[in-house]
Amino acid sequence: NSKGGYAALLRYSEQHSTPQPEKFATLHASSVEHYPSSADKTISAMQGNFLTLLMRMTRPQVVLELGCFMGYSAMAMADGMPQDSVLYTCELDSRAAQLARDLFEREGYNDQGISQNRQLAKIELLEGDGLASLQTLTKAKSNLKFDAVFIDADKGNYINYYNFIMDNDLLSDHGYILVDNALFQGLVVHSPSQDDQTKKKGSLPSPPPSPRLDASSSDAEKQKTAVRYQKYANHVDAFNRQVAKDPRVDVVLLPVFDGLSVIMKKSEKKATRS
Amino acid sequence: NSKGGYAALLRYSEQHSTPQPEKFATLHASSVEHYPSSADKTISAMQGNFLTLLMRMTRPQVVLELGCFMGYSAMAMADGMPQDSVLYTCELDSRAAQLARDLFEREGYNDQGISQNRQLAKIELLEGDGLASLQTLTKAKSNLKFDAVFIDADKGNYINYYNFIMDNDLLSDHGYILVDNALFQGLVVHSPSQDDQTKKKGSLPSPPPSPRLDASSSDAEKQKTAVRYQKYANHVDAFNRQVAKDPRVDVVLLPVFDGLSVIMKKSEKKATRS
Ligand SMILES: C[S@@+](CC[C@H](N)C(=O)[O-])C[C@H]1O[C@@H](n2cnc3c(N)ncnc32)[C@H](O)[C@@H]1O
Ligand SMILES: C[S@@+](CC[C@H](N)C(=O)[O-])C[C@H]1O[C@@H](n2cnc3c(N)ncnc32)[C@H](O)[C@@H]1O
Repeated sequence: NSKGGYAALLRYSEQHSTPQPEKFATLHASSVEHYPSSADKTISAMQGNFLTLLMRMTRPQVVLELGCFMGYSAMAMADGMPQDSVLYTCELDSRAAQLARDLFEREGYNDQGISQNRQLAKIELLEGDGLASLQTLTKAKSNLKFDAVFIDADKGNYINYYNFIMDNDLLSDHGYILVDNALFQGLVVHSPSQDDQTKKKGSLPSPPPSPRLDASSSDAEKQKTAVRYQKYANHVDAFNRQVAKDPRVDVVLLPVFDGLSVIMKKSEKKATRS
Repeated sequence: NSKGGYAALLRYSEQHSTPQPEKFATLHASSVEHYPSSADKTISAMQGNFLTLLMRMTRPQVVLELGCFMGYSAMAMADGMPQDSVLYTCELDSRAAQLARDLFEREGYNDQGISQNRQLAKIELLEGDGLASLQTLTKAKSNLKFDAVFIDADKGNYINYYNFIMDNDLLSDHGYILVDNALFQGLVVHSPSQDDQTKKKGSLPSPPPSPRLDASSSDAEKQKTAVRYQKYANHVDAFNRQVAKDPRVDVVLLPVFDGLSVIMKKSEKKATRS
């Protein structure tokens, strides 16, 4: 399918999916207001609904999120989680963290909500660097295991979040890691590792990257943004390559949304023939 | 992204996902041999791996498949299911059913395998029309509920499978329905319902459909195939529209593979504010 073809399929898919609940539309609007140039940080309405369904399908008791921003994906996951479950979500930016905390309190996902005996999962926001928060959290709670992890923070640290979780065996037996932006706007295919492969095969060089840009940017700014985005994509590509060759896990990189990887520990089940 | 762009993303995604286990590659090869012109009926390696992971994530006890063909997706699901679970799979074509049965026996998913105490889920093949098999099965086992359903048989009956399951409340509380080919090669956007919408908005008419075709087809055959494929796509489109407006369910049509819808009963959880 051509560009128009894929855009049409995306539109069709959205039109035939349940629309996002009202409070999420409000939050999307509020993100645009507070962060005009980076409101596209939040996941899409469709991805939000998918996360809610996935939580209902898998019923995780303990969930970890890296990268809360204003709380969109956290609230989407919480809405599908069982009522006695908890979601830890990490955010470095203190302004976004405060806005998210306000939201969680207003909507009743905080401690008080729990004590008042309603049916929502609890969301606990850990402000500060994600890796530091993760270290503090796991030190405070020994034997903590995550049933689901959503990695959506700084791309350069993807590999560190992943390594910390795997090296410390923090994933429960049926636990899984979801990695957002695994295709990073398609720019992963233009990373140095991929260019190498292309050159080896004797194909044409890759076209220049074309990231989403702010309409008001000057040419110099555009160029800087393009370079920065490609750097992020290179981090994600390096991460993808390491996961794909990690013998401890199975991974499926779904070419959906901005690329969503699903990672689990390899199953111990042996298919012994009868 | 252009066509090359999306194809490149797909290739990248495949290259950074766990490859299909050997026995699945063998089965794919065997499908091509037995059904040269319709070997693309089986799901892809990546979708197979995704189904296995999804079963591991959701641990269904009872699974239903409509459309077994030679058993690829059934074996993929079974490999992620718990050891005391059962997968019922329906197939109309008796030759495909026999080949699938042979495979399940050889690999130990049959009754005998179970009795020999190994760890595989059990696969039970129901030969004949899917709707008739479903009626017989649910009559024989009262209170049967499905934790997962995979619909991948004749497109004209999608709506009947769905209605039978929903109207008889056969989905467990955390159960879900997966619907394959929900975008039917992109042709759903050229269905009459979509043309109507396009015309209403005053846009250009849709381009003619361009289904995958056998290289050896004559022009007349090509034309017939195109018409037939569009008819299938129209069935799927009608199905998608009905599900999207069914107040009993939430649905996300994922624009991945050939389109994969995830459907659950609406949650009874009320988000009561504290
Ligand atoms: C893509 S946004 C997350 C969007 C959010 N998951 C959603 O869908 O609404 C990434 C977030 O990660 C945060 N972040 C960046 N570096 C971080 C770090 N070292 N630790 C924790 N959060 C970080 C950013 O401040 C930003 O809010
Ligand atoms: C797309 S193929 C299924 C592929 C399979 N799920 C896989 O991935 O390996 C569809 C199958 O549905 C079967 N089928 C068609 N009509 C049917 C019906 N009324 N009841 C049951 N199966 C039917 C066809 O014979 C065909 O094998």
